Order: sequence, then structure tokens, then C-alpha cells
Amino acid sequence: MRQRLSVEAYVAGVLAADRVVLSRAITLVESQLPADQPLAQEVLERVLPHAGRSLRLGITGVPGVGKSTFIEAFGKYLTGQGKRLAVLTVDPSSQRSGGSILGDKTRMEELAHDPRAYIRPSAAGTSLGGVARRTREAMLLCEAAGFEIILVETVGVGQSETVVRGMVDFFLLLMLAGAGDELQGIKRGIMEMADAVAITKADGPLAAEARRAQAEYQNALHLFPPAASGWVPQVLTCSALERTGLAELWHLIQKYHQSTLQTGYFEQNRRAQALDWMHDYIRQALEERFRRHPEVLRQLPATEKAVQQGHELPLAAARRLLALFLK
Amino acid sequence: MRQRLSVEAYVAGVLAADRVVLSRAITLVESQLPADQPLAQEVLERVLPHAGRSLRLGITGVPGVGKSTFIEAFGKYLTGQGKRLAVLTVDPSSQRSGGSILGDKTRMEELAHDPRAYIRPSAAGTSLGGVARRTREAMLLCEAAGFEIILVETVGVGQSETVVRGMVDFFLLLMLAGAGDELQGIKRGIMEMADAVAITKADGPLAAEARRAQAEYQNALHLFPPAASGWVPQVLTCSALERTGLAELWHLIQKYHQSTLQTGYFEQNRRAQALDWMHDYIRQALEERFRRHPEVLRQLPATEKAVQQGHELPLAAARRLLALFLK
Ligand SMILES: Nc1nc2c(ncn2[C@@H]2O[C@H](COP(=O)(O)OP(=O)(O)OP(=O)(O)O)[C@@H](O)[C@H]2O)c(=O)[nH]1
Ligand SMILES: Nc1nc2c(ncn2[C@@H]2O[C@H](COP(=O)(O)OP(=O)(O)OP(=O)(O)O)[C@@H](O)[C@H]2O)c(=O)[nH]1
Ligand SMILES: [Mg+2]
Ligand SMILES: [Mg+2]
Repeated sequence: MRQRLSVEAYVAGVLAADRVVLSRAITLVESQLPADQPLAQEVLERVLPHAGRSLRLGITGVPGVGKSTFIEAFGKYLTGQGKRLAVLTVDPSSQRSGGSILGDKTRMEELAHDPRAYIRPSAAGTSLGGVARRTREAMLLCEAAGFEIILVETVGVGQSETVVRGMVDFFLLLMLAGAGDELQGIKRGIMEMADAVAITKADGPLAAEARRAQAEYQNALHLFPPAASGWVPQVLTCSALERTGLAELWHLIQKYHQSTLQTGYFEQNRRAQALDWMHDYIRQALEERFRRHPEVLRQLPATEKAVQQGHELPLAAARRLLALFLK
Repeated sequence: MRQRLSVEAYVAGVLAADRVVLSRAITLVESQLPADQPLAQEVLERVLPHAGRSLRLGITGVPGVGKSTFIEAFGKYLTGQGKRLAVLTVDPSSQRSGGSILGDKTRMEELAHDPRAYIRPSAAGTSLGGVARRTREAMLLCEAAGFEIILVETVGVGQSETVVRGMVDFFLLLMLAGAGDELQGIKRGIMEMADAVAITKADGPLAAEARRAQAEYQNALHLFPPAASGWVPQVLTCSALERTGLAELWHLIQKYHQSTLQTGYFEQNRRAQALDWMHDYIRQALEERFRRHPEVLRQLPATEKAVQQGHELPLAAARRLLALFLK
């Protein structure tokens, strides 16, 4: 086990935006060691009053759509505007292949060396949905370190988009135009969760296609039910390669920010998210406890099979397993 | 407490499609009295081998869209085709106003007296999402009674659509055309869950509007990600008043049924649903236990407030409450 710092050292380092300490603090809150929990909790509690004052952006898109390249370009645009930006990547696939993170080192090279930016690739989560277990806490630490924009990236696997959507203020879907590729691999329900869709790689021969797709999607999103925020999702085009469309996107995000601040939705959503966050933890912890119970662990595989094959009633099976756990 | 029958009497009555016994069996499985549970479970287990051989249809739409009138018309069409049909209505609002169910008595009058049809309005559920707690079990009982088509109706409130979507083979969204009403009250994410959208009340002056809306939505749905079933959602128009579009809809549903049977998706989806069903119960039971714990009950309101207002960390609050429950 790596040596831990004192609570004071973590807190002072984070508040001073010391990247080394910030990284170590995130590692601490991500730790699954029971011994680390009280320290992690104390650090989080101490930084809490300094957290919350950022704009939280979620970005999703299928593998290869250009998320990393986009974040490099958009991130540089934002730091160029004088903003301080933290990027948290939540990659459920990185558990299997280390390639992704290595690739990102090259794809985000400029941003990685930008003094106004901080990039934290998180290994895959073990929690439900494959999302890094402590991305939300990492976000608080970054906010306490003074980052004004937190960008949470996720690839569309499992439930990760839903989980990320539940921790950000604005959710952006990156898509491709051309030859039906638009839809390749995007899960149902994601489009209706997006506050904006950016058709990326809108350069060279794909530029015209991108504009056509933009019009089509803008039309389609118009037919969707309105969001609770009252915001009508917008579709833009951009190119991370040519660095076009980035100012327009930032303008749009700011417009969303201002309008939801005005209506009170921004604050209301943050409060609802905090509450969901608590209930999610409780649900997860209860389920983990249940699943780790030795007798449940032993009987679950056969029970799941029996239920799937229709040999046992779901309700009866649930009761039987619950009885093992609760007695 | 109403007098119960013997297991044998319930099972024999249900299998003989005796409506009075079927209704009493559904009341039994819906019962929350602990004393009823073993009997309910035994009845369900005994009918299980006879269940599962129906086509399960889910229908949703905002209040007033015309669900009850549609079900009357579509139901009569189906029984006219020689089908036996059970209708389970799941109405989260009926807890508050008894009006809805009373209204349905008039709106489904013909169907209610049809010997091939069985209608069961369920009072509001107390479970998460406001769905009747035992709709899934009621469905099994209706199947054992030989109903070939089970129609589960829900109004778009809370999580009820998601829950109903998780227990049916085919999910139909009823919508209105005209003056932006299409979107009135439909929750985000529902459109992407639908296997078909029916623009209803396509009669009189609204017929032209309905056809326009049909074309628009068909276009939009085309831009959605493909469903796991491989099925591309279709948009139709219909009128419950003039009884038009019903044959086309039934044709479409049959096409879906056949194609998913062929690809194996139908069976695969049923198996996945059964498993989810078990896990849903477990999750609900664990949460209910947790929420009913006296100390949790006492501390939850203040804790929720503190978390919403940012005075306590969601993670810390969750741990504190869990400690009360688990110790
Ligand atoms: N022409 C063009 N190519 C781009 C653009 N953005 C990214 N690419 C290329 O698309 C490929 C994938 O880009 P990435 O940024 O790695 O995509 P990703 O979404 O992060 O992929 P994963 O990390 O695997 O999920 C790379 O070869 C990029 O060079 C762009 O704006 N225009
Ligand atoms: N013109 C026309 N009116 C219809 C049609 N179907 C229903 N209506 C009318 O629309 C109104 C609402 O119909 P209902 O069937 O009660 O609607 P519902 O969706 O069941 O409403 P709730 O039960 O309150 O959720 C009634 O006045 C119906 O007569 C139709 O096909 N054409
Ligand atoms: Mg990447
Ligand atoms: Mg009705």
C-alpha cells in the first residue's frame, strides 16, 4: 500500500490545486481498501464547502467517434478562453485493454501539457454499469481544486451513459455522419438524454454529409418530448482536426447554463442529483452485500438459470434468495 | 379478510378460465397480507407450466390520448378475429381518483361483456414507479387461463412505462397529432422504447394532421438507434371511433411476433425479462427493508434535506444510514 498523506496535506494540496496531491486524493477516494475509507471521507467532507462551483459536462459517443481528439481540441479552446478544465475519463473497456489510455496520451498530448488542464483517466469501474465507482467524488475534488469546467467522458457501454448523465449539468452526444454510421452502436434512449448532439469529423469530404445529418437530427429532436429543463436539444457540426464548430458549441453550452440558472432548473437538478447519488449508493451497497453473502453466492447461478428457463418463478426465486440473506 | 379458496380450487378455476376464480386469484396474488403469501406462491407455481404462451402487449400514452377507447376498439377487433384477450390496466392515478376506472366501465362496455375478453383494472401500485405490484403475476394467471393476448395498459406517470416495457413483448405508444399536442406530457425516453407509435383519433378534421405526423415520426424514428430486436419501430394512424387502422396494427404486431420468433429474440427477451424480474424483486425488497428500518425511517427526511442542500456528502449520508440498518 502506497503511503497516505494526512487529511490536512490532502486538503491543503487540493485547495492549492497541486496536481500531484489532487491525483493522490483521487486515488485515495477511489481506493477500495477499507482502511482508506475514513481518511477518504474526511478529505471529501473537508473539501465539500469548496466544491460545486463548476460547470459539469458529460460527453459520450461510440468507440472511434473521436471523443479523445474532440476533448483535446475543445479543451484547448476552453483553456484558450482562460478557463481551467479537468477531464475525467470513465472507460469501462480500459480494464480489458490498456490501449485506450495509452492512445489518449498521444491524442490529448497538447491538453495534457496545458497548465490550465488536468486529465485523469480512470480505470474501469467495478460498480453497476461499469462506471468508475468514484467519478462523482473525483469531480468534487477537481472542483475544490478550482477547475471551472469538469468534463466527464464515457464510452457507450453498459449503463455508463445513464450514470454519467446523472452527474453532469449538460450532456453532449458525439456522432458521425455518413452511410448509416450515425447510428452504429449508439444505444436506444441516449439520444433523448442529450442536451446537444455534435456531428464530429465534419471536415474534408464528410463536411457536406455532416450538415445534412445536422438538419435531419435537428428535425427529429424537435419531435421529442421537451426536457424537464425546458431546453430543446441542439445539433451542431464540428471538426476536432480543423478545430471548427468549437466556439459555437461553447456558446450553446453557455446559453444552456445561463437559461437553466435563470429558471432555477440548474440548481434544482443539482439537488435532485445529489439525492439520487445517495440513493444509488444505498441501493448498490445493499445489492453488493446481498450478492456477497456466501449462501447467495453459492445458489445464485443455478437460480438465475432456473428463472431464465422458466422452471422457477422470479418472485419465488427472489424470496428464496432473500430468505438466505435476511435470516 | 375475504375467505380464500384452496390451492386446488384456484388452480382448477384458473385453468378452466373461470372468470370469478381468475379474479379472486389475481386478488390473492395482489394481496399484501403476509398470511396470503404462501397460498399465492403455491397457486402461481402450480399454474406456471401453463403460463407464458401468450403475446404480451404494452400500451402507453398520456391521459386523454384515447387509451381506453382504443383498447375497446382494438380488443373488439381481436376478439372478432377469434382471439381471447385479457386487459390489465395499471393506473397509478386511480389511487387518487376512482374516476378513471369508473369511466373505463363505460368506455370499454362492449369489451367488458365480450365472452372472449377479460378486463382487470388494478388499483395503483405501492411499489417503485407506481406500477401495480403484481401485474406480472396477474399476467401469468391470465395466460394460464388461456388468454392468447395480454394487453397491459399504463398511463405515463413515474416509472410505469419502463416497468411495463420490461414485462411485455411489444410496446405501443399512443399519440395525438395536432398543434404540438403530440408531445404534450410524453416523457423523454419513451419514444425510443416503443416498437410502434399509433397516432390515434385520426378521424374527421384530424385525419390529415395525423397523416402528416405519421410521416414526420416515421422519419424521426428512422434516425434512432436500432433496437436490440433488430426491429425498426413503425408509425401508424388509427381511429378508435371509426375503428380504422386496427387491422394494419394487428398485422404489424404479428409481423413483429413472427420475425422475433424467427431470430430468437422473442425467447431471448423473455428469458432476460424473467431474470430482471427476479432482480427487481430483490432490489425492491432490500430497499423496502431498509426504508422500513425504524432508525432509517426516523433519520431519512433530515438526511435527504441535508444532502439536497449540500450540507452532507451523498456518500457519507448513505454510509451513515446503511450503518444504522446493517448493525
Ligand atoms: N477527419 C477527422 N478525423 C478525426 C476527427 N476527430 C478524430 N478523428 C480520428 O478518428 C479516430 C478516432 O479518434 P479518437 O479521438 O481516438 O476516438 P474515441 O472516440 O476517443 O475512441 P475510443 O477512445 O476508442 O472510444 C482517430 O484516428 C482520429 O484521428 C476529426 O475531427 N476529423
Ligand atoms: N375523435 C376521436 N375521439 C376519441 C377517439 N378515441 C378516444 N376519443 C375521445 O377521447 C377522450 C379520451 O378517451 P379515453 O379513451 O378515455 O382516453 P384515455 O387515454 O384512456 O384517458 P385516461 O384513462 O384518462 O388516461 C374521450 O372523450 C374519447 O371519446 C378517437 O379515435 N377519435
Ligand atoms: Mg478515446
Ligand atoms: Mg383510460
